[in-house]
Amino acid sequence: MIKEIQQHRSIRRFSKQSIPQDLIREMLVAATRASTVGTMQLYSIVITTDKELREQLAACHFNQPASKAPALVTFCVDVARFEHWCKLRDANPDYKNFIWFVNGAIDTLLASQNFCLQAESNGLGICYLGTTVYTTDKIIEILQIPHGVIPLTTVAVGYPDEEVGLTHRLPLEAVVHFDTYKNPSDDDINNFWSDTESSELTKKLLIENDLPNLAKIFTEKRYRADDSAMLSQNYIATLKKQGFLK
Amino acid sequence: MIKEIQQHRSIRRFSKQSIPQDLIREMLVAATRASTVGTMQLYSIVITTDKELREQLAACHFNQPASKAPALVTFCVDVARFEHWCKLRDANPDYKNFIWFVNGAIDTLLASQNFCLQAESNGLGICYLGTTVYTTDKIIEILQIPHGVIPLTTVAVGYPDEEVGLTHRLPLEAVVHFDTYKNPSDDDINNFWSDTESSELTKKLLIENDLPNLAKIFTEKRYRADDSAMLSQNYIATLKKQGFLK
Repeated sequence: MIKEIQQHRSIRRFSKQSIPQDLIREMLVAATRASTVGTMQLYSIVITTDKELREQLAACHFNQPASKAPALVTFCVDVARFEHWCKLRDANPDYKNFIWFVNGAIDTLLASQNFCLQAESNGLGICYLGTTVYTTDKIIEILQIPHGVIPLTTVAVGYPDEEVGLTHRLPLEAVVHFDTYKNPSDDDINNFWSDTESSELTKKLLIENDLPNLAKIFTEKRYRADDSAMLSQNYIATLKKQGFLK
Repeated sequence: MIKEIQQHRSIRRFSKQSIPQDLIREMLVAATRASTVGTMQLYSIVITTDKELREQLAACHFNQPASKAPALVTFCVDVARFEHWCKLRDANPDYKNFIWFVNGAIDTLLASQNFCLQAESNGLGICYLGTTVYTTDKIIEILQIPHGVIPLTTVAVGYPDEEVGLTHRLPLEAVVHFDTYKNPSDDDINNFWSDTESSELTKKLLIENDLPNLAKIFTEKRYRADDSAMLSQNYIATLKKQGFLK
């Protein structure tokens, strides 16, 4: 298996060492080699190394340890550049709508994953910051993101200052379906999660959180229903503000 | 640079040779090693090799050449499996909403890109089929996709039966911004597209389409405003039907 894929772990603590420009360039070129709808490249990559800006961004990412990386790379869906070109050519574009947000999101994330694997190949560590879609409005303001562009994910990147093991995954049969989707039975679900639930990490989390099972740690602590409702509304409002939803 | 990233080209014509099971398994494992929000793995991968089902799916992909591949792999955002587990543990999940569609889309596309790079490492060719979001309802029916799950992209995979060159990309400065987003000037845009517009491929397309410039081929032929409006409405309706939008 491709070494970088097999050995990927998210790195959340980085040394202060900055990343050489030629390596950054190689990672960015790798990003652009990913598949893209109609060769339109519907993304922009904002790579922030300025200390003050990084501190402002880190606050958007709730100052989680990974947000202290020497570079924060914000991957955005971008139809503005393509529309700008069309308008200069007297063509009438209309890519500011939902389907082009989805098409652009596909472009953006294939590019981000190429970027990450190339970063790891270059000896760097990465962590995706899912908080990007929680505080999108503030990130837009800090990075001066224009209409027709919306942040989707951020990659923290730098030289690792920790060693971490591979994280657990569900057995392959939990996520793979042959020919058509097969609804799992209750027994299947119990089997899929049995290794996770019996792990030492889970036992530790149950004590820390004073909850009877891991699922409740997700629903009552990590990702609560009331937060999801608010965050959904916020991201939808930002999609409207940036022009992707009427 | 990672060889598979550097040498990636989309393959649209495949030999009839089927893919050995151990290689498929390796590609699927590679997919699951990608970063995933909270280790939740909010995706399902439906790999279709049955001939009759593939023909039905190919129709959803407008029978484009790539849709005739020996395997069509539909990558879906899936919160149903996770919610099923939560419910069995007396936890109250609420991941059927828009923010979890976005979180799940990130998971799904990082997994698909790992799958593709590993496929190429195994000597196979791939092509992303963007048509997945155009005919999602039909794909849901064919693949028996349940509530809480929605197809996002499809990868056609098989042994290449064509040789193709690298496709053109915009210069790096078109898509990369340092520290903050910089709005390009008209001159910048002209420069970004000058190589593309002066290429032999573009000249050929202008004659074939009888149009004065490449931008108009996009706006008047390939991706038209009236199609975008309809496709946006359709995908939004499907998101509602599958439970991701109230």
